Amino acid sequence: MPTQVTVSAPVNIAVVKYWGKRDTSLLLPTNSSLSLTLSQDDLRSTTTVRIDALFNKDRLWLNGKEEDATANKRMVRVVQELRAVRKELQNKDSSLEALDEQKMHICSENNFPTAAGLASSASGFAALTFGIAHALGIADKISTADLSRLARQGSGSACRSLFGGFVAWNMGINPDGSDSVAEQVADEKHWPDMEALVLVASDARKDTPSTAGMQLTIETSDLLRERIANVVPQRMSDIKTAIVNKNYDAFAEHTMRDSNQFHAVCLDTFPPITYLNDVSRAVIHLVTAYNNLFTEKSDNAASSKKGYRAAYTFDAGPNAVLYVRREHVPEILAIVNATFPAPADADKQTYLGRAAQYVGQEDKTVVSDLLSKIKMAPMPQGSLKRIISTSVGDGPRVLGWNSEASLLLDNGLPKRTV
Amino acid sequence: MPTQVTVSAPVNIAVVKYWGKRDTSLLLPTNSSLSLTLSQDDLRSTTTVRIDALFNKDRLWLNGKEEDATANKRMVRVVQELRAVRKELQNKDSSLEALDEQKMHICSENNFPTAAGLASSASGFAALTFGIAHALGIADKISTADLSRLARQGSGSACRSLFGGFVAWNMGINPDGSDSVAEQVADEKHWPDMEALVLVASDARKDTPSTAGMQLTIETSDLLRERIANVVPQRMSDIKTAIVNKNYDAFAEHTMRDSNQFHAVCLDTFPPITYLNDVSRAVIHLVTAYNNLFTEKSDNAASSKKGYRAAYTFDAGPNAVLYVRREHVPEILAIVNATFPAPADADKQTYLGRAAQYVGQEDKTVVSDLLSKIKMAPMPQGSLKRIISTSVGDGPRVLGWNSEASLLLDNGLPKRTV
Repeated sequence: MPTQVTVSAPVNIAVVKYWGKRDTSLLLPTNSSLSLTLSQDDLRSTTTVRIDALFNKDRLWLNGKEEDATANKRMVRVVQELRAVRKELQNKDSSLEALDEQKMHICSENNFPTAAGLASSASGFAALTFGIAHALGIADKISTADLSRLARQGSGSACRSLFGGFVAWNMGINPDGSDSVAEQVADEKHWPDMEALVLVASDARKDTPSTAGMQLTIETSDLLRERIANVVPQRMSDIKTAIVNKNYDAFAEHTMRDSNQFHAVCLDTFPPITYLNDVSRAVIHLVTAYNNLFTEKSDNAASSKKGYRAAYTFDAGPNAVLYVRREHVPEILAIVNATFPAPADADKQTYLGRAAQYVGQEDKTVVSDLLSKIKMAPMPQGSLKRIISTSVGDGPRVLGWNSEASLLLDNGLPKRTV
Repeated sequence: MPTQVTVSAPVNIAVVKYWGKRDTSLLLPTNSSLSLTLSQDDLRSTTTVRIDALFNKDRLWLNGKEEDATANKRMVRVVQELRAVRKELQNKDSSLEALDEQKMHICSENNFPTAAGLASSASGFAALTFGIAHALGIADKISTADLSRLARQGSGSACRSLFGGFVAWNMGINPDGSDSVAEQVADEKHWPDMEALVLVASDARKDTPSTAGMQLTIETSDLLRERIANVVPQRMSDIKTAIVNKNYDAFAEHTMRDSNQFHAVCLDTFPPITYLNDVSRAVIHLVTAYNNLFTEKSDNAASSKKGYRAAYTFDAGPNAVLYVRREHVPEILAIVNATFPAPADADKQTYLGRAAQYVGQEDKTVVSDLLSKIKMAPMPQGSLKRIISTSVGDGPRVLGWNSEASLLLDNGLPKRTV
């Protein structure tokens, strides 16, 4: 009897950024990081793992295309480590089937296009790790922290996608990476009105891959040391407090400052890495001008009222993620759409996720007043390719053990190929 | 008899950037800086100063438009200090006319448009300081270093425009600013084949003014401290050595790294300051790809050969200045023109300075080969507004004492107004 399970895992977007590895083999970072897990209702990697005595080799399909399952060293290591856990169990209980000796077929798909500009390796490796653990029957013998540690070895930020809600990845200090693992700061129900808008910029230019980029930053940036030694440790502490207290102003300011500083150390790299383009700059300008409308400045900085309504963050590309509160989403979408008009050949923006339900819900008088105060000339039509609207969500899910949920046919080959 | 003199002063473009004041009144910087003085044959501020017993107040015209001579506090201070030097001389020698009590008319023009994206305050305040000193008959009683110190109080970087060639502005340590003054590292004849290309980007967006921007960086950037304390002191020392030894590779790498780091601390400012736009990024990309063609990489970093051919630097705006050696100018102009094609309604780029003499002098086979290796898609037509080509030049010049050179008519009013 083959064992087959289908799981899904979420995307996460960091507000304190991971950039730089102190160990490139174990994927140990130079600083801790913190992310929000986005809802799998909108964005997810789905993976089916099937273990079958009839299979003669491990096989892997990603988004309908077969990959060489032995070529990806990081994946091979994750699979090996999970099989070793199973082997240990079998050694203790001889009634258990030797699943560790059977080959597996893994089929994984993202429901978001690569062009969405969302890194798929985090959700992909989280789903892979979670799925294999379930298929091997060891999921209840291994803690989520241990799964997180394994997923980290596949793709650093994957360790954060093993948890829902607000997730810290503690860099750890042990050379073997045993303490470099994610933990939940607060679950997905803690701050229920926290939402995310992904603004996908139109930009064909190929960016520096993040793996190569972050090592170049370590080798050449004089400013990274200061960030690692002094800025991030304090920020991790401060943003955790902000999250626990649901202090949006503090959360927003740390989020924006950390994104800015991550891109600053990229620019301080030699040759420089420049992920932010003119569309990104315009998003920063728009969010800054919008927030300023609700900020009461005072000569005494301590008595200034911030009143932030949106916080931008940019990963290794030009796309913005805005963390906002649900009550402001219709207004913010309207302001974004006015400043970044849809392509000339489309009558509206392309939406993914829950954005469509908010469109048109804004108070048009309020929006018109805000836009007149923001005074920003619209960007060229089609500067944004799509807008994805989602919320904070839970950790990986088991979707089912039967063939209905499966991405594989009964013969162990994918239902869909390209 | 009125005293009248006409002078010119040069533009300077820093390779180690000044950004941040430790004293906003005396214009004392948070770090030392170093610039190259550009040739006045191509780019200059020209100033006529006339002192006349018949004038009833100080008056000032900038680029043909009268300004309130008492409103510019920084200018008032420079004028006062120079009059005080004259007064002291008169006290010692009663035969001297009391020029310090007579009013002056100052008329100043730049030969480059504001839209050239070159800061005019450095050359303008240098010409003003130099011109007034001559008109007051104290130019031979005051050292160039003292003039530099006075010009600094008008506009920080003006202190560097009092010297030709390669000029360091030492930040100093004295609270009164007495040791915060420029000095010549090497004169304009030292490295005769050093040339500059100014690539002026088309961008209507108004940038953050540098005076406000630099103070915001001091208040909010966590990375600026590291730059000030550790990076710039070492870089000043290293780039002086590179200049003295005419080591272009070392000069070029420090120039590019310092520009990158200056823009990195701007991005680390909150809210962030983003001067580099997509045209700037494309220039960085082009220069990096071009330089890479002449770089021999080795596993042993020490034995890698750099072979740089161009070094970019960006001030507080999107325009690039490339420091290059004369032999490469035709080739570089051809590569720039291929990557940044002229506007659709123009058959060629708009040139200022000596660029025209280089156009068409390139080896077309070599350029075609370089472009095929650089593999960069051309930017939209008209992304560059103009190209200015010039060399390293001398310090301020006295153009004449007679009415021919003067910007003022015999009646003390400007020849040209707008």
